[in-house]
Amino acid sequence: MSKTSKLISEISRLASDRRPRAVGLLGGGVIGGGWAARFLLNGVDVRLYGPSDRAVERVQNMLANARRAYQRLTTLPLPAEGALTVVDSVAEAVLGAELVQESAPERLELKQQLLALASRAAAPETLICSSTSGFRPSLLQAEMDHAERLLVAHPFDPVHLLPLVELCAGQRTAPETLGRAAEIYRSVGMHPLVVRKEVDGFIANRLQEAMWREALWLVHDDVATVKEVDDAIRYSFGLRRAIIGPFRMSGDATGMRHFMDKWGPALKWPRTKLTDVPELTGAFLDKLAGQSDAQTKSDNLTIPEIQQKRDDCLLAVLQALRAKGYGAGETLLSWEKGLRDRDPQLIDLDSQLTSGSGPLRMATRQIPSDWLDHDGHLNEIRCFQLFGSAAGTLLHYIGLDGEYLSNSGNYRSVETHLSHLRALYAGDRIRVLTQVLGADDKRLHLFHMMMREDDDGPAVTGEQMLVHVEAGNGRSGPVQGKLRERVLELGRLHAELPRPGRAGASIGLR
Amino acid sequence: MSKTSKLISEISRLASDRRPRAVGLLGGGVIGGGWAARFLLNGVDVRLYGPSDRAVERVQNMLANARRAYQRLTTLPLPAEGALTVVDSVAEAVLGAELVQESAPERLELKQQLLALASRAAAPETLICSSTSGFRPSLLQAEMDHAERLLVAHPFDPVHLLPLVELCAGQRTAPETLGRAAEIYRSVGMHPLVVRKEVDGFIANRLQEAMWREALWLVHDDVATVKEVDDAIRYSFGLRRAIIGPFRMSGDATGMRHFMDKWGPALKWPRTKLTDVPELTGAFLDKLAGQSDAQTKSDNLTIPEIQQKRDDCLLAVLQALRAKGYGAGETLLSWEKGLRDRDPQLIDLDSQLTSGSGPLRMATRQIPSDWLDHDGHLNEIRCFQLFGSAAGTLLHYIGLDGEYLSNSGNYRSVETHLSHLRALYAGDRIRVLTQVLGADDKRLHLFHMMMREDDDGPAVTGEQMLVHVEAGNGRSGPVQGKLRERVLELGRLHAELPRPGRAGASIGLR
Repeated sequence: MSKTSKLISEISRLASDRRPRAVGLLGGGVIGGGWAARFLLNGVDVRLYGPSDRAVERVQNMLANARRAYQRLTTLPLPAEGALTVVDSVAEAVLGAELVQESAPERLELKQQLLALASRAAAPETLICSSTSGFRPSLLQAEMDHAERLLVAHPFDPVHLLPLVELCAGQRTAPETLGRAAEIYRSVGMHPLVVRKEVDGFIANRLQEAMWREALWLVHDDVATVKEVDDAIRYSFGLRRAIIGPFRMSGDATGMRHFMDKWGPALKWPRTKLTDVPELTGAFLDKLAGQSDAQTKSDNLTIPEIQQKRDDCLLAVLQALRAKGYGAGETLLSWEKGLRDRDPQLIDLDSQLTSGSGPLRMATRQIPSDWLDHDGHLNEIRCFQLFGSAAGTLLHYIGLDGEYLSNSGNYRSVETHLSHLRALYAGDRIRVLTQVLGADDKRLHLFHMMMREDDDGPAVTGEQMLVHVEAGNGRSGPVQGKLRERVLELGRLHAELPRPGRAGASIGLR
Repeated sequence: MSKTSKLISEISRLASDRRPRAVGLLGGGVIGGGWAARFLLNGVDVRLYGPSDRAVERVQNMLANARRAYQRLTTLPLPAEGALTVVDSVAEAVLGAELVQESAPERLELKQQLLALASRAAAPETLICSSTSGFRPSLLQAEMDHAERLLVAHPFDPVHLLPLVELCAGQRTAPETLGRAAEIYRSVGMHPLVVRKEVDGFIANRLQEAMWREALWLVHDDVATVKEVDDAIRYSFGLRRAIIGPFRMSGDATGMRHFMDKWGPALKWPRTKLTDVPELTGAFLDKLAGQSDAQTKSDNLTIPEIQQKRDDCLLAVLQALRAKGYGAGETLLSWEKGLRDRDPQLIDLDSQLTSGSGPLRMATRQIPSDWLDHDGHLNEIRCFQLFGSAAGTLLHYIGLDGEYLSNSGNYRSVETHLSHLRALYAGDRIRVLTQVLGADDKRLHLFHMMMREDDDGPAVTGEQMLVHVEAGNGRSGPVQGKLRERVLELGRLHAELPRPGRAGASIGLR
């Protein structure tokens, strides 16, 4: 194994608990401010040398934003925030810092000057890292004392959220500094990646910029507008990029060599503005195929498993964006609106009700395997959601539509009691039956039973009290108009049904 | 407004309920099989002309996979699946189809031949679309009858999940066919995007391929391995690409003109292999800035709101990947493990218990605004999660660790009763107090109270019965060893506390 490969493999095994006490930051722009937020919210003290009053204000704003983001990022308690000290000189910034991070504007002389100053003020063992988006570290080392502790540590905007930091050593960098830096970045939630050769722009920015050049040509040539270029990406391969890189393009699962056989010739076609590519020699194809096979092998999954994993990750991303009503999530929402408008369920509820024979029977569905807990049982939160969705279908059916929501009000759940009676597993076809136990002007008392299709007793029951709240103020108030009539009518109809045994049960030991 | 712009704006306003009854598919590879799955699962009949027995088997596998994915994609009932008919000729495939989709291998003559055959067999009003990843539609029209109904409709793998379809007209295409095709694709959950000019590779593939060329150079020059290129993307800008395209690179919110002032010169630096870019004339910069400003304006958000929206979408994507334990989600999990290892809460519980003064007090936290329902109250599922996490902290504290989980067992919740007593809002600082109401060999009866820090009554209560289940078989069985001692001890200690008023309550109208 080469020295670089050995170092890379050592770094991948490093622990993540080597959090520094304090860091010094040079520069308080978008990147410097992002570093400040990431370190402070991870409990690290920050000494910030920023050039202007405006920079301090901006850092405070970025920190407020990041604080808000970290509250959403995890439900775990965060460490006590580090202390932010704004200082007036490089010397004060590096004082007591285990790591100094330079994030000045992208001008070589400015960075060289700052790094030289920092190197003279800091103890010789202090790590000095540059956030440069493209200058080779050897150039940055030019004027420094103890240049062996300088490396590039290139983060991505927004720094408080994106995990990658590219580590690149210069000619004079001591190899062990990469490991020390990697430990520190990992301790604040980042993913350090060592760049094997010193090269302008490192890895990710070269890839981003290649795409950006092509994007500029597309707009320049009027093939697409700025918005259309953005849309072309975020509705298509952009959704895959959070999950898999460009070397795993193919869904046909026949491996990189087959992929290159198929698509290698297309690299000579005029499908990009710039078509220069490495010559596809046997040696180069061997390298690509070998590295790709090694990656697939280290995943330790069969090809169908890899495809399922990819789909599951894509589904998770699509659902995340649906929750935000954004991009491809918006497309998903409008598709679901179509499903709802065509829902055969509502017609079916109507015939059930006129026949008046029992609780309302919701549509059956199969339990997918990602609805299970680690112990293989249907997850409690999913039961909760299924009962909530049965209540929603019932309300929709009796006339709670968009107009009623905006003008009159809504029902909200004030009490819920879930009981698990029998286990449910992946693949089980289940159905929810919903019975109205009582209804008055304000309240609607429901009882849900989740049954396996081939079973006659409920596996999970859910008792629920809903209260009608008024549109606008959200205070409880009487249900109105046609909806009121139908709620009360449904209550009267269901009053004739036998009361489920577990209705009104309480929880207790024996 | 130009004719193209008018068409594009019309298409963006189309309804999504124009679902066809049947489509004909030519080709059953990765793309053809993906189309089959998308149409069938949306209730559209498919007549598939695929060249080999193996193709039919592969389509069946892809359909099974897609069925699994659609069950996870939505909790809404899906339409009844369309019927799949495998046919032996192009003529049979186009029979009764409103749209014919060609997805043959990427060889021009083969595609021309298939499309010509289809055009002679199909009624003149049948839409004929090609899935080509790069041939100009004018070339594909060469041999066709009624070539005016041919357009390119280029999808992305996996076709059943990725929403984009690029529509590109050839010289002989009738403009109204784009609208007709867009309606059909939208009805099956896709996002149609019209390409303004006929160009090889259309939009998204040109962008992907530019990046891929650069990726090939990086591997060729040993700057990174295949895996490192993939990682550089999925841990950094890949996470943004599902949300925002390359023209919204900048977090400093000063607009495209400022961005180009700052980064335009860098386009001449050797930071990609190929550096040819359009000349940054005043007119081109005006176009970029104008289109970018228009996009920002149409979002109707202030700059800080845009940044929060970006962060919220990124958080949602990160959390989606955490749920899958994949990519950046893995980094997040290992960061959280660090937080848990350093959790001051557990030390604090210990001192609470030795002082023996009341229910266990969990850490406080603030309610973020995305934990609210549409009506501004704390979401019921979040209450459920907060009580679940309090139970988890309690169990972790009394010694339920990874070793116990693997060798002895776990507790699972069999009954839960949530009651909402007072409203909670975003920004409220809340704390959960947890009291053991009873414990025996198998059962653990808990009562949680969620309180505002500045309030003395509970806002939400949660009563919960947990049962101990054995590792391996998941059946209920007695708690073991040290954990048993500590559970029973905690039960004895808390038996001396006053019993909460709502413990053992049942649900009912008065």
